[in-house]
Amino acid sequence: MARTAGMPALSPPGPDRSVAARPLARLLGSWRRPGPAYAALADALRLLVLDGRLPLAVRLPGERELAAALGLSRTTVTAAYGRLRDQGYAVSRQGSGTRTRLPAAAEGRPGAAEPAMVLGEDAGPGVIDLAYAAPRAPEGALYAAVAAAVEELPRYLPGHGYEPRGLPVLRAAIAERYTARGLPTRPGQVLVTNGAQHALALLLLLLTGPGDRVLVEHPTYPNALEAVRRAGGRPVPVGLPDEGWDVEALEAAARQTGPRLAYLIADFQNPTGRLMDAATREQVAGLARRAGVPVVVDETLAELSLDDATGPAPVPAFGPARGGRDDGRVLAVGSASKVFWGGLRIGWLRAPEELVDRLVAARPGLDLGTPVLEQIVLARLLADVVPVTATRRTRLRAQRDTLAGALAEALPTWRFDPPPGGLALWVHLDAPVSSALAAVAGRHGLRLAAGPRFGVDGAFERFLRVPYTGPAEDLRDAATRLASAYAEVRGGGRRRARRADEGDATVVA
Amino acid sequence: MARTAGMPALSPPGPDRSVAARPLARLLGSWRRPGPAYAALADALRLLVLDGRLPLAVRLPGERELAAALGLSRTTVTAAYGRLRDQGYAVSRQGSGTRTRLPAAAEGRPGAAEPAMVLGEDAGPGVIDLAYAAPRAPEGALYAAVAAAVEELPRYLPGHGYEPRGLPVLRAAIAERYTARGLPTRPGQVLVTNGAQHALALLLLLLTGPGDRVLVEHPTYPNALEAVRRAGGRPVPVGLPDEGWDVEALEAAARQTGPRLAYLIADFQNPTGRLMDAATREQVAGLARRAGVPVVVDETLAELSLDDATGPAPVPAFGPARGGRDDGRVLAVGSASKVFWGGLRIGWLRAPEELVDRLVAARPGLDLGTPVLEQIVLARLLADVVPVTATRRTRLRAQRDTLAGALAEALPTWRFDPPPGGLALWVHLDAPVSSALAAVAGRHGLRLAAGPRFGVDGAFERFLRVPYTGPAEDLRDAATRLASAYAEVRGGGRRRARRADEGDATVVA
Repeated sequence: MARTAGMPALSPPGPDRSVAARPLARLLGSWRRPGPAYAALADALRLLVLDGRLPLAVRLPGERELAAALGLSRTTVTAAYGRLRDQGYAVSRQGSGTRTRLPAAAEGRPGAAEPAMVLGEDAGPGVIDLAYAAPRAPEGALYAAVAAAVEELPRYLPGHGYEPRGLPVLRAAIAERYTARGLPTRPGQVLVTNGAQHALALLLLLLTGPGDRVLVEHPTYPNALEAVRRAGGRPVPVGLPDEGWDVEALEAAARQTGPRLAYLIADFQNPTGRLMDAATREQVAGLARRAGVPVVVDETLAELSLDDATGPAPVPAFGPARGGRDDGRVLAVGSASKVFWGGLRIGWLRAPEELVDRLVAARPGLDLGTPVLEQIVLARLLADVVPVTATRRTRLRAQRDTLAGALAEALPTWRFDPPPGGLALWVHLDAPVSSALAAVAGRHGLRLAAGPRFGVDGAFERFLRVPYTGPAEDLRDAATRLASAYAEVRGGGRRRARRADEGDATVVA
Repeated sequence: MARTAGMPALSPPGPDRSVAARPLARLLGSWRRPGPAYAALADALRLLVLDGRLPLAVRLPGERELAAALGLSRTTVTAAYGRLRDQGYAVSRQGSGTRTRLPAAAEGRPGAAEPAMVLGEDAGPGVIDLAYAAPRAPEGALYAAVAAAVEELPRYLPGHGYEPRGLPVLRAAIAERYTARGLPTRPGQVLVTNGAQHALALLLLLLTGPGDRVLVEHPTYPNALEAVRRAGGRPVPVGLPDEGWDVEALEAAARQTGPRLAYLIADFQNPTGRLMDAATREQVAGLARRAGVPVVVDETLAELSLDDATGPAPVPAFGPARGGRDDGRVLAVGSASKVFWGGLRIGWLRAPEELVDRLVAARPGLDLGTPVLEQIVLARLLADVVPVTATRRTRLRAQRDTLAGALAEALPTWRFDPPPGGLALWVHLDAPVSSALAAVAGRHGLRLAAGPRFGVDGAFERFLRVPYTGPAEDLRDAATRLASAYAEVRGGGRRRARRADEGDATVVA
């Protein structure tokens, strides 16, 4: 709880955390390249550490096991581990095997710690703000909903206005929307919150205590990491493979660290944009049941599919039913911020009724309820959600394609897969310079959130999240400015890339 | 953090907590009555324990010292302590003196624990809800402000809507209001929150950790106790004397328990309604400085003076200035809920600018900001606060006097001093039956929050908070219904008074 500002605790996984040979082989993917195999393997392992897909202090498989899994000689793996140690990315201790680490220089690198706080500050005139992935409001629809809500407000004014569960009309509208999306829901299973972040904070308050571990994807949404840390918990990052999710790795981490909660973003994962398929949802629901770990899925972006109108049902729909009720191991949090507008600050939580009751009882630990007027506005908006999201999707699809085209032209060495939904590209740079880019961005009329924001322990220096929430002309300008910032960073060489944080922006969306 | 619902930790003060003879003599007041002095003294001490003015596990003064302070023989005090022990209200151990306690039966009594959760549920048709002290909205002024805010909203819609510090226009309006109340304030010292409760939660998140102690008045606002406990802290209750505040007792508790924070309600203290005078404010500011404990003053009711238009300046104004800035030991939290409407759910916090920055950095641990529209509404309302509060005060004054008259007539053995401001009477019953009253209230068309809600360890069974926020006819009916509930409880005798919680309502306002 009590934290010194600017000094977030890193989150070392437990001493027994390890990765087995087979999952590591999957993570490594196609690692071979011309030249000695031991060097290629060491480089591939180093990239996994740098990119955060392999967390720190994780015990690597025994040399014999990894050699067998990769079809190599044991000598090759021994040499690769040795090279990794020489470069500072692994450490071996008698009886404890070889564990991942970062070189001292990299650990002290600004990206590994929190920079000065700029949350909520305007980027300034002429600056293109790529730190927020938050679209402007659907102005016509929002204004109409507000005007209609004002007409309804007088009915509520004679009451005291405290609604810690949420207005019945809004809880019914949220339940209906879940039902329409393939997850039958009663209003009693819905709690209205001040956003998805607040919903997560409430779950952490009730279900976790100081020192408890919380499984997260790696990379993940920075404010989720922040909420876990502020609640006194320790995020346990589980790397995402090249595609999809590695449920086996999640299960292994659950076994090894005994987390109290898991937080996953199945719909257009932030920042990678990936969508979890139905088979994996089924596995995640099974994991929640088998490991006894409640899984919180963040559905903030779930309505923002860009390529298919209908995706898989919400993850709780894959949980087994008990007497007609889902078993409550998979909880969902959602938000009006991305579908409608961040300025509304309303979200919700879907959980079994008895858990909703306990959350309502715990709520005074954070606040006493959500404003009445905003709730009426959201109920109105949800009544007409389909046309609003259709318009929004069309616009975002065009913006995504504009940004992808402009980036491919301006920065041909950067790689990305345009995501099937959500609000941003997760771009793979060809050098670990993300913090350096964020540091010089201001000089090029940009505001950036560096890749390490999305991970723990300074990972993801080779990545940058680039939102396509702005208008087309801004996106084209942004690509040009990114190219000039990149030229400066690459021209400035290694020294400059090392001192790199003043300009790094905190991500709040 | 992690708490089992319905099982709040009691908050035993530290093992070295003690009360000296002189402060205890002050607390005892005029305790003498006909009959043996030892019995009268024991009864008076027992009442202090039952009413929570003497916390549990506090070491009583040595017999010789108390005898000297009260002008009694040592034998009398020895006999009084013996009687207290026999009745279960004290325990003596070799080398550790005599400490206060509650008899086992009283500890297990429902009032000592949290009852089933009913927060946010409607009381039902025909029921007069006396659990909430929350007035209805000033409908004309509120509706006009909302309509005007809707006209301003379009200016904000092109932005992303995230404002974790609050809109500049609202921060300026809050700063101006402080300045007008005698406390010069810059907008940079203001953070907009989702209510005063949320402001307190944010301060607890940043400034306290698990197990830390927080000084509170006893009795105090139940949700403040809840926030401290949910944050993993331990409330240290300091009893209020018959009148005013006992700053010496606060200082002694600060010395003895080393709290990280103190939470006080100087303006129309909830539930007692008392107003801290200027001299005491000066002492409290001095205590904050000398003991090095930040003091949070809750100003939720500060604008609701009923008898005098101008009270003392806000407590931070009594803090010493350093280079033109107050020293930041006294922090203030405020709310629009009681001056305007609970359904707005906006509050604020006043602190030094550097602390505001740290709170903004910590905020993602709870939420990401306050809704834009509500903020514009509140800025509008504050621009015209004087006529709104004048109307509200006039109405509340009449309601206070109506309730006082009706109670005096219907329940002549109940005692209270009509408070100079705020929203409720703190009524002293003539028997420890507050939980029993709350339990039977439903049968009499009432909803009550029992006295023990306002204390720790089951104290205040002899008290009931009765709000005068409803219309006059409801207040008169409420007095009649209270009298019939009281008749049932007294007629039902001792047994019924012991099993008494099903109907007890959680207080949220």
